[in-house]
Amino acid sequence: MNEDVKVEVGLGERAYDILIGPGLVGRAGAEIGRRLPGVRAAIVTDENVGKQHLEVLKQGLEAGGIASSSIVLPAGEKTKNFAALQEVVDAVLAARLERGDVVIAFGGGVIGDLSGFAAGIVRRGMNFVQIPTSLLAQVDSSVGGKTGINSARGKNLVGVFHQPKLVLADTAVLDTLPVREFRAGYAEVAKYGLIDRPEFFAWLEKNWREVFSGGPARIEAIAQSCRAKADVVARDEFETGDRALLNLGHTFGHALEAAVAYDGARLVHGEGVAIGMALAHRFSARLNLASPDDAARVEAHLKAVGLPWRMADIPGDLPDAEALLSFIAQDKKVSRGALTFILTRGIGQSFIARDVPTSEVLAFLKENHPG
Amino acid sequence: MNEDVKVEVGLGERAYDILIGPGLVGRAGAEIGRRLPGVRAAIVTDENVGKQHLEVLKQGLEAGGIASSSIVLPAGEKTKNFAALQEVVDAVLAARLERGDVVIAFGGGVIGDLSGFAAGIVRRGMNFVQIPTSLLAQVDSSVGGKTGINSARGKNLVGVFHQPKLVLADTAVLDTLPVREFRAGYAEVAKYGLIDRPEFFAWLEKNWREVFSGGPARIEAIAQSCRAKADVVARDEFETGDRALLNLGHTFGHALEAAVAYDGARLVHGEGVAIGMALAHRFSARLNLASPDDAARVEAHLKAVGLPWRMADIPGDLPDAEALLSFIAQDKKVSRGALTFILTRGIGQSFIARDVPTSEVLAFLKENHPG
Repeated sequence: MNEDVKVEVGLGERAYDILIGPGLVGRAGAEIGRRLPGVRAAIVTDENVGKQHLEVLKQGLEAGGIASSSIVLPAGEKTKNFAALQEVVDAVLAARLERGDVVIAFGGGVIGDLSGFAAGIVRRGMNFVQIPTSLLAQVDSSVGGKTGINSARGKNLVGVFHQPKLVLADTAVLDTLPVREFRAGYAEVAKYGLIDRPEFFAWLEKNWREVFSGGPARIEAIAQSCRAKADVVARDEFETGDRALLNLGHTFGHALEAAVAYDGARLVHGEGVAIGMALAHRFSARLNLASPDDAARVEAHLKAVGLPWRMADIPGDLPDAEALLSFIAQDKKVSRGALTFILTRGIGQSFIARDVPTSEVLAFLKENHPG
Repeated sequence: MNEDVKVEVGLGERAYDILIGPGLVGRAGAEIGRRLPGVRAAIVTDENVGKQHLEVLKQGLEAGGIASSSIVLPAGEKTKNFAALQEVVDAVLAARLERGDVVIAFGGGVIGDLSGFAAGIVRRGMNFVQIPTSLLAQVDSSVGGKTGINSARGKNLVGVFHQPKLVLADTAVLDTLPVREFRAGYAEVAKYGLIDRPEFFAWLEKNWREVFSGGPARIEAIAQSCRAKADVVARDEFETGDRALLNLGHTFGHALEAAVAYDGARLVHGEGVAIGMALAHRFSARLNLASPDDAARVEAHLKAVGLPWRMADIPGDLPDAEALLSFIAQDKKVSRGALTFILTRGIGQSFIARDVPTSEVLAFLKENHPG
């Protein structure tokens, strides 16, 4: 027996397991075959992950008696578009997979979101398994069933809710990631502490080095993160309420990503979230909702792990504050014209603030703009 | 007070009403506004319907205080593709509609399926209202939440389940349809009798002329059809069982549509279903499941109303029996390689037959092939 940690996502008929542990890619066939006997698989991956790990996965599937075909896409956020969606859909249909067969997302968040969307619309919904290969995807995008692509008008504006049947988070695969990418994923780990688990945030302040270096602390941090997200998702599968808390740092973060035109050389998603979280805490302090000491504590931790925490940390010029505000207004978390933010009363005390005045946001952006 | 007939589709949280009666297009704003106060709307329509009825709808919405924009697409089955889907999605986003706003499908089945799909994926699911303008759409595609587009590999292979909030079936609008189109829609009306309502089929044999000419018999036939479909859908929203009965005539029908490359000049959907239903009854007789007299009765009724009922009624050459079989095999109603058909034990006694031998289907197609 292996010693994977199991997190159950309690969604009734759509409940599923997240397995977390080293070597799961090579054992994928056994784990999938146990839950979905007799299926065939279409693997969707990107060039980077494919080069390093596709053969191991294919052999792991074959060892479990699962025949597979694969689709290899260019790496990067730009792949989350309509053309790539159509390419994946066509490839799955060309492989003559049926509704009961499985699409496997094998990569980071881009691959997970894109192929989950494809799995959700081919034959109006096929089986779907996530094998996330980045820390970000393991703790965030692979849990919760949100799938989608970007539009010229914003990130993730088009997609469906489609829950996986299983998530396999191979913690050893993370050792092959560039450190910058691992670090960006860590921003989402810290996020769960900041939302409503202050003791987890304090644990991270002490143990983050061990999370980076690997071993039990890494597995523990991933499991805690998945549990935190699974709890929120089980309460609010379709994001009509509480689930919006998961967007802590994302309103500012998405706007910054859009402002650099999703140029990963300048800013990747997790880095945007890191800056966004720091700004959300600083903005909350400016609105007299939280102590400036808490904002400083968040900033200090992000800085300690080597994450960007302010707009000035983004290389190159940014659009001005007015332009940033209009990126925020086009973000999907706008309800009937009022700006909705996740703000906080302190570490682990975040809440959904509706009707945040545009003028306050603009003034805050101006104060914090590096230009 | 108007005297619309109301059919309730019982889907729990996703329950909705179908209103059936004359003049509903002009009263759309009041009916939508009552259920979805404060929304804005994006109308999706085609050139034919737009030319005749768009102004009436826009004024009807305005009278109910609903501001709207509109997207007008080319008419016809070819519009059910990825490019048109993207066009609708982009237009809805460009209009800056939010999740709580509404996409209105205003047209036949093509417009309904396409814009329902778009509504299902913009912001992971927006409000959706159907105002079907063809008989086919009123009794079939507007009820049940199936949405989608065609793929080069087959019809409706890509889509989502997305229930409308309301369906408005304006029976007066049907007077502006070409007779051929009305007649094609009538095939789906007859289908509900053939599935499990033998007394409704007998009623249609007597009253079909009044259904064609308009008035109370038309409203009654549409309401009966919607009730029949709503019953099946409420039992099996996601088509894991019983709902497949609605595919009576569709396995042969889709194959014939594919065989003429969806050329509406040769065969429109309802006509394919008519031939498909006649073939399903004749095939059931050949397999000694039903009496040949029942097949003859179905054929006679279809012939009486002026519908095609055999492959020889399709103008032009058809691919040979082997090619037709391969179109059937690629149809989505294939489960793990076995052919699934809706067969019958007589009028109103249809059932789902799995594992129908390919050899029997091929022999039957050869016997009935006009070439």
